[in-house]
Amino acid sequence: MGVPIQQSRTVQTRLVLPSNTNHLGTIFGGTVLAYIDEIAAIAAMRHARKAVVTASIDKVDFISSAKVGDILKLEAFVFSTGRTSMEVFVKVETEDLFTGEHHLTTTCFLTMVAIDQNRKPTPVPKVVVNDTEKAFIESIKKQRQ
Amino acid sequence: MGVPIQQSRTVQTRLVLPSNTNHLGTIFGGTVLAYIDEIAAIAAMRHARKAVVTASIDKVDFISSAKVGDILKLEAFVFSTGRTSMEVFVKVETEDLFTGEHHLTTTCFLTMVAIDQNRKPTPVPKVVVNDTEKAFIESIKKQRQ
Amino acid sequence: MGVPIQQSRTVQTRLVLPSNTNHLGTIFGGTVLAYIDEIAAIAAMRHARKAVVTASIDKVDFISSAKVGDILKLEAFVFSTGRTSMEVFVKVETEDLFTGEHHLTTTCFLTMVAIDQNRKPTPVPKVVVNDTEKAFIESIKKQRQ
Amino acid sequence: MGVPIQQSRTVQTRLVLPSNTNHLGTIFGGTVLAYIDEIAAIAAMRHARKAVVTASIDKVDFISSAKVGDILKLEAFVFSTGRTSMEVFVKVETEDLFTGEHHLTTTCFLTMVAIDQNRKPTPVPKVVVNDTEKAFIESIKKQRQ
Amino acid sequence: MGVPIQQSRTVQTRLVLPSNTNHLGTIFGGTVLAYIDEIAAIAAMRHARKAVVTASIDKVDFISSAKVGDILKLEAFVFSTGRTSMEVFVKVETEDLFTGEHHLTTTCFLTMVAIDQNRKPTPVPKVVVNDTEKAFIESIKKQRQ
Amino acid sequence: MGVPIQQSRTVQTRLVLPSNTNHLGTIFGGTVLAYIDEIAAIAAMRHARKAVVTASIDKVDFISSAKVGDILKLEAFVFSTGRTSMEVFVKVETEDLFTGEHHLTTTCFLTMVAIDQNRKPTPVPKVVVNDTEKAFIESIKKQRQ
Ligand SMILES: CC(C)(COP(=O)(O)OP(=O)(O)OC[C@H]1O[C@@H](n2cnc3c(N)ncnc32)[C@H](O)[C@@H]1OP(=O)(O)O)[C@@H](O)C(=O)NCCC(=O)NCCS
Ligand SMILES: CC(C)(COP(=O)(O)OP(=O)(O)OC[C@H]1O[C@@H](n2cnc3c(N)ncnc32)[C@H](O)[C@@H]1OP(=O)(O)O)[C@@H](O)C(=O)NCCC(=O)NCCS
Ligand SMILES: CC(C)(COP(=O)(O)OP(=O)(O)OC[C@H]1O[C@@H](n2cnc3c(N)ncnc32)[C@H](O)[C@@H]1OP(=O)(O)O)[C@@H](O)C(=O)NCCC(=O)NCCS
Ligand SMILES: CC(C)(COP(=O)(O)OP(=O)(O)OC[C@H]1O[C@@H](n2cnc3c(N)ncnc32)[C@H](O)[C@@H]1OP(=O)(O)O)[C@@H](O)C(=O)NCCC(=O)NCCS
Repeated sequence: MGVPIQQSRTVQTRLVLPSNTNHLGTIFGGTVLAYIDEIAAIAAMRHARKAVVTASIDKVDFISSAKVGDILKLEAFVFSTGRTSMEVFVKVETEDLFTGEHHLTTTCFLTMVAIDQNRKPTPVPKVVVNDTEKAFIESIKKQRQ
Repeated sequence: MGVPIQQSRTVQTRLVLPSNTNHLGTIFGGTVLAYIDEIAAIAAMRHARKAVVTASIDKVDFISSAKVGDILKLEAFVFSTGRTSMEVFVKVETEDLFTGEHHLTTTCFLTMVAIDQNRKPTPVPKVVVNDTEKAFIESIKKQRQ
Repeated sequence: MGVPIQQSRTVQTRLVLPSNTNHLGTIFGGTVLAYIDEIAAIAAMRHARKAVVTASIDKVDFISSAKVGDILKLEAFVFSTGRTSMEVFVKVETEDLFTGEHHLTTTCFLTMVAIDQNRKPTPVPKVVVNDTEKAFIESIKKQRQ
Repeated sequence: MGVPIQQSRTVQTRLVLPSNTNHLGTIFGGTVLAYIDEIAAIAAMRHARKAVVTASIDKVDFISSAKVGDILKLEAFVFSTGRTSMEVFVKVETEDLFTGEHHLTTTCFLTMVAIDQNRKPTPVPKVVVNDTEKAFIESIKKQRQ
Repeated sequence: MGVPIQQSRTVQTRLVLPSNTNHLGTIFGGTVLAYIDEIAAIAAMRHARKAVVTASIDKVDFISSAKVGDILKLEAFVFSTGRTSMEVFVKVETEDLFTGEHHLTTTCFLTMVAIDQNRKPTPVPKVVVNDTEKAFIESIKKQRQ
Repeated sequence: MGVPIQQSRTVQTRLVLPSNTNHLGTIFGGTVLAYIDEIAAIAAMRHARKAVVTASIDKVDFISSAKVGDILKLEAFVFSTGRTSMEVFVKVETEDLFTGEHHLTTTCFLTMVAIDQNRKPTPVPKVVVNDTEKAFIESIKKQRQ
């Protein structure tokens, strides 16, 4: 009676605009972090069908940067759950508008907690991982430790 | 030597925030139109690998509305091209956060034109439609007339 | 007992800022569409003295573009009504800051619907067109067909 | 060889949105000040056909406030000039969406200075006041002292 | 039983971003005014422990400007009170990112009024000025006249 | 010839606005993360007197939340350096507007890297820790491990 990963899987595609960048034209880390949190929240809400808050975000390494005119592609899904908490995996890639080349910007993990109308933690359903996803989810879990 | 539809296909998932809504809590039409234009531009740039401008947007009917806390799902791709222009199809759906129910908000068509550094129209590659997509693309083209 | 066009007539003058433009410095179509929807909503609310939603926007052709530093001038009014719906005409012009030259960016038509506290369509008063406006309004109606 | 007041006269009509208000639903003074500065800059640029900066803004008294859903109407024009500076008069009114009642929010005066590409002050043309405007402009100048 | 100046004293440090500037890269006066109002409101709320509205802002002279990449430093505190009103002093400085040089942008005075849930003026506690602050506060009061 | 901690120490005080919160009125984690990154960047630029990018942010635990009308207080400084990188400590507290009570929201660590005009890492000066700061900085370093 759990929820398949497909239900929480969420994709975002965003254009890097001048207003998201410093005077050297590269995107602020804070903008990327805000995008990561937003997509993780959507994924968690889709899993739980409840409101959520961010309990924590693991270490984020920005491996490569993005500049004005680039496209940012974000993908997120819930891969594991506790009683009221959900583990979300987020991957951020940059796509060069002119060449179509992709670069990994970062991958990261967040813990989101479902809350009720009184903002108290409230239970969430389990994740159901099907056979074709199993190896991938295991590699994500290992990556986390 | 054309470009497959898969290259331009773009997905967005957005949360309806209080700052996007009127005092009755429903999203502004203008916010949805801005999202439609942004995703159409990303799809067209991915097709052409060039900067683009919006030449026109066909009539948009808002069939159902979205409220604070709903999720908006947008999808776009280039389905047909001229010499310098691209026809983009955009579909907007609303997902109720709590029930997971989907409603169609609108579908619409935009013409985007590729431009060079002097902001002059510049040629774009053709779209390649594979066999499984053919019937769907024909139905979209018919819908437009 | 109707409402004169003068009551709904609304004027906006906006500066094109770097944050509204792409990396070639031209304004996003989506920004212009959001401005068009906002001014149409103000015009319709002034006519109906009620909250409104956007039911539809007719085809918009962007005839000329605007760049950073240009001034956008928008004008809107309700020119015709149904039982709960209002037809709004919007005209957008660009003014070059340095030469004062004006260019037509687009004209377009929107249907706005008055809604009550339960977000249900609710009646609006008729438009009163005076003798000097008659010919102009007829030409707008003809333009629409 | 001066510039008529009509050239700089600028009108804005804005909706008070939730994102412009505090948790009691009344608009921030700072939002109104930002609107006043923007319209004064547009009026001054239309007069001078040059870029401008704000040199000073006279005391602003907020006589009445505006709440979510109200309409703000701003009007500005250049009524007097120095060598490189322009005196701008701005009037802000609130329109109640449901009753159509108008309230004066504030009137105020700003000094804008025209600047060249090196951000140095640069001369502006004189204002031409026609006969029907004379008494009104004199009353504004008196109000200022 | 009054409130020491230390309780209301508030510091802000902001980066001047491209989206806050005109096409010559200098910050809008309106952005600085909005920052001034925000920090004055925080200072007044900290003094009164109540919601506040801006009643007036005294003349603001922009002595020096700030450009993209500069740091703005704002400081505010309540230095005098009436029954329901508070006088707030705000100082704005610019810090050049590369040289560390400071320039005074402006100092100014605002009157904030505490309001209750019905948006009616409500009493505020007095300011307590200690011996070391006395001379400074007197100089500020004199500056105001 | 190093830089004292005082030079990079930066303080922010922000109001939690409706536009930064979800429909339960609590601030988005992503907004807090964006604020953390902004203040860390300012602190690092003040230390290095150079442009900076975010290389990484350590795990962030959100211990308590903030709601509309609360005040967020952020503080940051550079406490250690490599050749081109700087370690920044950020502390975020919430202040209840009405009671004045403070709650710790989070503390965290970021690595910022100074970059030159070609966006390449460039050397930064060392941090100078004076005697009264020593114990505190040691405790921060220990906290990090
Ligand atoms: C997250 C929060 C709701 C946890 O509340 P709490 O009173 O500690 O509740 P509990 O102890 O019952 O914990 C609830 C769940 O959260 C998890 N959790 C709590 N703190 C966590 C943290 N820092 N990191 C990861 N998980 C955490 C617990 O393990 C528990 O998970 P489980 O139910 O799956 O076993 C609370 O700390 C909070 O409101 N934090 C602020 C969240 C927020 O507003 N973030 C936005 C920016 S401030
Ligand atoms: C779109 C634009 C570039 C066309 O320029 P033009 O000088 O008319 O160029 P052309 O006549 O060579 O037309 C170029 C292509 O655009 C198409 N086009 C032009 N106007 C169009 C319209 N209103 N609707 C749909 N397609 C249009 C032409 O059919 C042609 O297509 P093709 O090359 O595939 O055959 C020009 O009108 C423009 O810059 N408009 C403003 C765009 C903009 O900035 N939008 C954002 C908001 S203002
Ligand atoms: C517009 C809307 C209120 C109409 O509701 P409805 O249940 O179809 O109501 P009705 O059939 O009674 O129609 C009401 C009026 O709207 C008009 N209308 C409905 N759909 C329309 C459309 N697509 N285009 C133009 N007018 C339309 C009807 O002709 C009718 O006009 P009249 O009263 O003057 O004769 C409803 O479709 C809706 O809420 N749409 C979403 C609006 C919105 O939120 N827009 C923002 C972006 S999503
Ligand atoms: C951070 C960045 C400039 C490092 O570039 P690089 O080619 O690896 O350069 P170097 O190997 O010379 O490293 C430079 C410094 O960064 C440090 N560094 C590199 N990656 C790091 C990471 N993930 N976490 C912490 N420090 C890191 C190195 O230790 C080195 O420090 P030191 O000079 O004090 O010894 C590069 O990875 C980058 O541009 N990342 C994107 C940054 C960005 O744009 N962030 C915003 C959001 S995407």
